[in-house]
Amino acid sequence: MITLASDFGTPYPAAMRGVICTRTDARIEDIAHDFPRQDVRAAAFWLTQTLPYFPPAVHCVVVDPGVGTDRDAVVVRAGTHALVAPDNGVALPVARELADSVEVFTWAYDDPASSTFHGRDVFAPAAAAVHEAGVDVVSELDRTTPTDDYVDLQFPTAELVDGGARGEVLVVDGFGNVVTNIPGSILESRFGGTVTVDGDPIPVRRAYAALDPGDRLVTVGSHGNVELAVTQGRGDDAFGVGVGDPVSLAL
Amino acid sequence: MITLASDFGTPYPAAMRGVICTRTDARIEDIAHDFPRQDVRAAAFWLTQTLPYFPPAVHCVVVDPGVGTDRDAVVVRAGTHALVAPDNGVALPVARELADSVEVFTWAYDDPASSTFHGRDVFAPAAAAVHEAGVDVVSELDRTTPTDDYVDLQFPTAELVDGGARGEVLVVDGFGNVVTNIPGSILESRFGGTVTVDGDPIPVRRAYAALDPGDRLVTVGSHGNVELAVTQGRGDDAFGVGVGDPVSLAL
Amino acid sequence: MITLASDFGTPYPAAMRGVICTRTDARIEDIAHDFPRQDVRAAAFWLTQTLPYFPPAVHCVVVDPGVGTDRDAVVVRAGTHALVAPDNGVALPVARELADSVEVFTWAYDDPASSTFHGRDVFAPAAAAVHEAGVDVVSELDRTTPTDDYVDLQFPTAELVDGGARGEVLVVDGFGNVVTNIPGSILESRFGGTVTVDGDPIPVRRAYAALDPGDRLVTVGSHGNVELAVTQGRGDDAFGVGVGDPVSLAL
Repeated sequence: MITLASDFGTPYPAAMRGVICTRTDARIEDIAHDFPRQDVRAAAFWLTQTLPYFPPAVHCVVVDPGVGTDRDAVVVRAGTHALVAPDNGVALPVARELADSVEVFTWAYDDPASSTFHGRDVFAPAAAAVHEAGVDVVSELDRTTPTDDYVDLQFPTAELVDGGARGEVLVVDGFGNVVTNIPGSILESRFGGTVTVDGDPIPVRRAYAALDPGDRLVTVGSHGNVELAVTQGRGDDAFGVGVGDPVSLAL
Repeated sequence: MITLASDFGTPYPAAMRGVICTRTDARIEDIAHDFPRQDVRAAAFWLTQTLPYFPPAVHCVVVDPGVGTDRDAVVVRAGTHALVAPDNGVALPVARELADSVEVFTWAYDDPASSTFHGRDVFAPAAAAVHEAGVDVVSELDRTTPTDDYVDLQFPTAELVDGGARGEVLVVDGFGNVVTNIPGSILESRFGGTVTVDGDPIPVRRAYAALDPGDRLVTVGSHGNVELAVTQGRGDDAFGVGVGDPVSLAL
Repeated sequence: MITLASDFGTPYPAAMRGVICTRTDARIEDIAHDFPRQDVRAAAFWLTQTLPYFPPAVHCVVVDPGVGTDRDAVVVRAGTHALVAPDNGVALPVARELADSVEVFTWAYDDPASSTFHGRDVFAPAAAAVHEAGVDVVSELDRTTPTDDYVDLQFPTAELVDGGARGEVLVVDGFGNVVTNIPGSILESRFGGTVTVDGDPIPVRRAYAALDPGDRLVTVGSHGNVELAVTQGRGDDAFGVGVGDPVSLAL
C-alpha cells in the first residue's frame, strides 16, 4: 500500500497516482491533498493523526516549499513503514510515533523533468520504487545512503506551570476546532467543571454538543491534546486565535 | 465494499480508512466528506442520491453532531446493504430506498479512545466488522440488538395545492442548483412553457443550457425533484433562497 | 482502469462510481472533480497534465455545459487509451498527446433517466461498457459510429515575436501560479537573469523558493509552459492577471 499526502489540491496528485500506477499495482490511499499550503509543521501534525492508523505502507508526503532548490529527498524507515518526503522534517514526527527507532536515508534522484513538481518527477517514482523493493531492504537500494545530517522537526512543547499550562495553537481543523500543544491529561479530573482560557472561564466537556449552540468549551480532541471548540460553531472565531498564537490555560 | 460518507473534510477520513484497512481488504469508496457540517437532513438527502447506485455494500455514514453524548450507534440493514451510523436518522431515508423492509440494530461499542472522533473509534471499526461478518448475519453479531426505538427522519413533504405546490428547499448543490421537495412529476407537461415561482414567471426547461447565460429556469433534477437553476449561473443567488426556505410554485 | 474527471464537486461523482462498480470491477482513479465549472478549455488543459501519466485506461471526462441539449456523446480512441466525453472538444487535446493518431466515435445512448446528470446516466455506463469490451474493439461496438464531424478544441498559440512572446493565461492553479501558453523553451538561457513581463523586469528562476517571500518570478512549470509565480505567494494576485488575460514577455 502507498499513501499520498500533499498540499497540492487538485489535479496535480492525479499525475502522481498515474506515475505510481505505471510502476506498481499497489493500492493507493489518499491522506489529504489540502494540507495548509507550504506549512511543513501543520502537515507533520496531521500525519501523526492519520498514518499510525494504517497497516504497513510506503507513505509519500509532499509539502515542499523548497522544491527545485538543492534540498534533498529522504526515505525514512520507521519499523514496517517507510516515508518518502523532502528533507524538511515533515516526515520525522510521525516516524517517531510509528516506530521506536527511525533511520533516515537520502534518496539520490536523477535530474527531474521539472523543477517545480517533484511530487510527480521525484517522490512518486521513489515511493513506487521503495514499495516494489520492500521497506525491509531500503538500506540496500542503490539510491539510498544513510544519513544523520537531515532536517528534523519537533512540535513546540507546552510549558506546564503551577496551576495550568502555557502552549500554542498547532493547527485549526476544518470545523474550526483549535488544536493546541497542551497535553489533554491536564484536564483529566476537570470534565464537567471549568478552566480559565486566556483569562475567561470556559466549561470543560467531553462532547462538542454538551452545551448550547454558540457556547465555547474546552475538550480533549482525538489527538489527545487540549482543544478549544464551540458547540455547533467555530472555535477559532470564538476564541479569536489562529495557528501559532499562544494559549494560556489555568486550572 | 465499504463506502464512507461524512462532514469531516480532511484529513480525518484518512484515519478511518486506515482503521478499516487494518481490519479488511475490502474496497473502500468515498461518497463525500464535505456534506454540510452537522446537517443530518442534508446528508440523508445526498445519501439517497448516491448509495442506491452502488452494488451491495456496507455504508459507513458519520454526520454526528451528538458525538460524545450518549446517543447510540446503529446498524441499519436494508436488503443486501447495511448502513453503520449514529442514531440520528441520517441512514433511514436511503435505507427505505434501498429495500422494502428495513431493520435497525443498536451497535454496542466499547468505551472509545476519544469522545470527539467516533468516526475513527466507533463507526469505522463497526463497518469493518459488519463487512467481515457479512450483511446477512448482522442480526447474529454479539454487538447488535434489534430495536424499534431509534431516531427516524423523514423529508418534509410538499403540499400539492390546486394549480401548484408549496414546498421547501432541501439542499443546494455545489453549482448553486436549488433542490426542492416538490415532485418533478408536477412539471411533466410543462417543459417548453412557464410556471410561476414565488410570484415570478419562470421558463421550464430540460437543460441548464436551454436559455441565455444568467437566465433563471425551472427543471427536474437528477433526483426527480423540482430544481431552481440558472443557465451558467447559481440558482440560489438568482432566486434568493437557501436551505429550508419555502418555495411556492403555480402552474 | 477507469479514470474520472469532472467539474461536479461532490457528491455527484459518487453516483458515477456506483454505476461503474455495478458494471465492472475495474480500478477507478479520480483525476479531479473540481475543474473550473463548465470551463471546457481549462478541463482540457488539466487533462493534458494528468492523463498521459497513466497506464492504458478508459478516461471518463464530464465537463458538460450542454447537458440535456442535443449534443452528442463521443468516444475518442488514442492508442491504448479511450476517452468518453461530451462532444465539446474537452477530450481532444489530451488525446493528441496520448497518441499520434486519434479516432472519434459518436456514442449512441438511450434516453437517459435525467436530463441534467448524464455523468451518471450516460457517461459512466459508457465508460464501463468500453472498459469491459476493451479499447481495441471500440470501433466494433453497436453503439459507436466513426465520425469526422465532432467539436474540436485547440489551445490558443502564443505569438513569438522578435525579442519575446505574446500569449495568454490558460489556467491558474490552486497555488495561484499563472500558467501561460508561452512555451518554456523561450526562457532556456535566461535562468538566473531577468525578463520583462507586461513591462516589469522579473527574475527568471527554476524554483518557487529562489527569492524572498512575496517576490515575483517567472519560471517554467511542470507543463513546460512559462509560469508567473510568487515565492510563497499567489502569482495571479501579484501579477494581476486571470484566465484569458494577455501576457507579454520581452527577453
